[in-house]
Amino acid sequence: LKDGKKDIFRELIEELKPYDQAMLYQNIPTKHKPLFLELLTLLEVTGLLRHLSKDEQLLVLKTLDPKRATDILDLMEVDDLAFLLDDLSLKEIDNLIVKMQLEEMEILRRIMRYPKKTAGRVMTTRYIWVHHSYTVEQAIHKLKSFRNIAAYINYLYVIDDDKKLIGVVSYRDLLLADLNKCIEMFMEKNVVKIDGLTKQEEAAKIIGRYDFVSLPVTDENNILVGIITVDDILDIVVQEANEDIEKLLATGKEITFQTNPFVAARRRMPWLILLLFIGLVSGGIIERFENTLETVVALAFFMPMIAGMTGNTGTQSLAVVVRGLVSEDLNFKKASQLLFRELLVGIIIGITCAIFIAMIAYVWRGSLALGLVVGASLLATLIIGTLAGTVIPLILYKLKADPAVASGPLITTINDILSLLIYFGIATMFISNLM
Amino acid sequence: LKDGKKDIFRELIEELKPYDQAMLYQNIPTKHKPLFLELLTLLEVTGLLRHLSKDEQLLVLKTLDPKRATDILDLMEVDDLAFLLDDLSLKEIDNLIVKMQLEEMEILRRIMRYPKKTAGRVMTTRYIWVHHSYTVEQAIHKLKSFRNIAAYINYLYVIDDDKKLIGVVSYRDLLLADLNKCIEMFMEKNVVKIDGLTKQEEAAKIIGRYDFVSLPVTDENNILVGIITVDDILDIVVQEANEDIEKLLATGKEITFQTNPFVAARRRMPWLILLLFIGLVSGGIIERFENTLETVVALAFFMPMIAGMTGNTGTQSLAVVVRGLVSEDLNFKKASQLLFRELLVGIIIGITCAIFIAMIAYVWRGSLALGLVVGASLLATLIIGTLAGTVIPLILYKLKADPAVASGPLITTINDILSLLIYFGIATMFISNLM
Repeated sequence: LKDGKKDIFRELIEELKPYDQAMLYQNIPTKHKPLFLELLTLLEVTGLLRHLSKDEQLLVLKTLDPKRATDILDLMEVDDLAFLLDDLSLKEIDNLIVKMQLEEMEILRRIMRYPKKTAGRVMTTRYIWVHHSYTVEQAIHKLKSFRNIAAYINYLYVIDDDKKLIGVVSYRDLLLADLNKCIEMFMEKNVVKIDGLTKQEEAAKIIGRYDFVSLPVTDENNILVGIITVDDILDIVVQEANEDIEKLLATGKEITFQTNPFVAARRRMPWLILLLFIGLVSGGIIERFENTLETVVALAFFMPMIAGMTGNTGTQSLAVVVRGLVSEDLNFKKASQLLFRELLVGIIIGITCAIFIAMIAYVWRGSLALGLVVGASLLATLIIGTLAGTVIPLILYKLKADPAVASGPLITTINDILSLLIYFGIATMFISNLM
Repeated sequence: LKDGKKDIFRELIEELKPYDQAMLYQNIPTKHKPLFLELLTLLEVTGLLRHLSKDEQLLVLKTLDPKRATDILDLMEVDDLAFLLDDLSLKEIDNLIVKMQLEEMEILRRIMRYPKKTAGRVMTTRYIWVHHSYTVEQAIHKLKSFRNIAAYINYLYVIDDDKKLIGVVSYRDLLLADLNKCIEMFMEKNVVKIDGLTKQEEAAKIIGRYDFVSLPVTDENNILVGIITVDDILDIVVQEANEDIEKLLATGKEITFQTNPFVAARRRMPWLILLLFIGLVSGGIIERFENTLETVVALAFFMPMIAGMTGNTGTQSLAVVVRGLVSEDLNFKKASQLLFRELLVGIIIGITCAIFIAMIAYVWRGSLALGLVVGASLLATLIIGTLAGTVIPLILYKLKADPAVASGPLITTINDILSLLIYFGIATMFISNLM
């Protein structure tokens, strides 16, 4: 990277796509990073930024001289910028954007007014619109003058005098049409669009269903305010799946391979502390049945198995419900069918496993009564565990909360408690037979 | 749907997108379904099929008269067709495709030679290529003659005399270029492409990184054999995320809201039976420590909490590893950093929780020795549980197996066993202090 090699460096950089430039940037020694950035064009730095984490992006912006940093903020897509600014204090935001172009700042403000994770937040405003009276030639002319903006989009959006969205035309149709033809004649009039306040998952569902590469976003007056592109949707789908897994496995927020151990431990801790206290409830239940346990210590042998199985079946049901809701909408009829199905599943699984375990317990400990108590308990706990794993996320969904908040560990811990109550309850009822 | 209303029906149908037609089709009474299909054009039925499940697709194909069914098979994208035929017996396949056009059948055979879940399996062959000597005008002419095929693609692929892929041109660049200009002059030469045998996850990673809408697939000689489009990638990303969750929560394969209870129970059962037997190992361990437990029954109170916490921390680590691997590649250095990080996390979490629980146990049972035994056990099990949740998926990844096979319930059950061994081991060592 010495001065003499600048040309070679430029040649190398020009061969690379933004993602690869970002990977290269991450891997060079820290002391060379400022020089690396200096040798890039503004557009290249902007492209590279997209592939860095928030912290790294801020570091880059601070490294650059203020004039360049401001130019880059102007070039960044406003949805990325809004995402970057999300966690900063107002003062930090002001410092960063004070010198931005007024126009860009106005757009940024508008986007940041939409709540997080809505279509309005992830849309880009870099689309090209044409008036419905335009001819193909006029449309191509407009496209030419905005060629840098229109990079990844393959549609022109058609609006009327009131700026209302009334149609869409693909580049392909433009290519194939006569130059003098009016856009209105062959535009697609049946436009699927969404409101800026729609949740981003909903936008992802729609793009997935219709195989779109972009989806226009309108406000309450059907005025076009932005578009959502499929590459953003791809990021959203991965992000939503990761969040589902984070919640289902109670991992805590956003722990990547790069998170430092103290931050990772702090993010994981709340769930663990909560589950520790709920786990103590199980201890309290066992204490209440101390006499039963002291009389028949063998009951303790089956405790982990019964609690574990109840947790596992509950977690399975939870996964079925949470993932089903990603692609399906739910109504009362579907929910009750699902509940009935899971009840049947619980009964089938319960009977099968109960017969197994009753025989094993009888053979192992030589007590028919013990076998029957363990088998009956497992039957009851599996049915109730399966239902708990279904009902809890459904109720959360009904309450418009995220069903994945009912994490696997939470269901497991709740099912632990239920299973111990049932198991020791049944055992205490038949204590005279067990002695 | 009576005869008189055919026109109204047609009008309604033409307003709808394929996904909506499919939803409508699913919701009408079964007896009207054949008539519904009859009133659709071949292209419409083909579009509708894409949005039905495999079973429903086969049912539709059987409902149609053989001539129409064959025409539709010819129209279907071969990757969808390959997916549909995957689970059928050879005889059923023969019956279905016997009358397909030879050319289409040849393409289908070629695609089905690629292993499942590779790029070759999910690619489409409906792309448009142009020779590098073409002018813009010639390219547009070719595009015109294949206009039905090129529907969702926004690129032309450029090949040389040996049919090797040497460039790519977007519709946008075609629109903006002079009609007499040669394609070679302005095509993008630095083409990102993948081999047909690459895994579909890998293709998804690349499309996500570079924000592509399509990705060309080549064979070992750099000859273009197909392209992967972003709408297929979106399906793949959702499917992979669902599979990760199915595995992480040991749910069993493909259980949707529509799966019938017996099938669902059968798919969930193998994991449960396996976990039932592993759970009995816990019972065996407790039996070995029967004397310890009989001497200090209070040890049983903390059993569910210690086992649960070890399982939870292991599951958290598992989730971090499995989801991290979705977007990151792993080398030895990264893996050892991760392992060291998780060790530190285990120690931090362990110390915090151990102090908590030692105090609680002391206050609750009034025995300092019990408090210290429970605290020390929790410290040890949390460190080991965290490591187990990290090491097991990393080993699976190293062995080129899917790290998500180490499901949460499996890690939980393994951690149950480890935690009981440690807990009762420590308790037995200090049994004289506990009495």
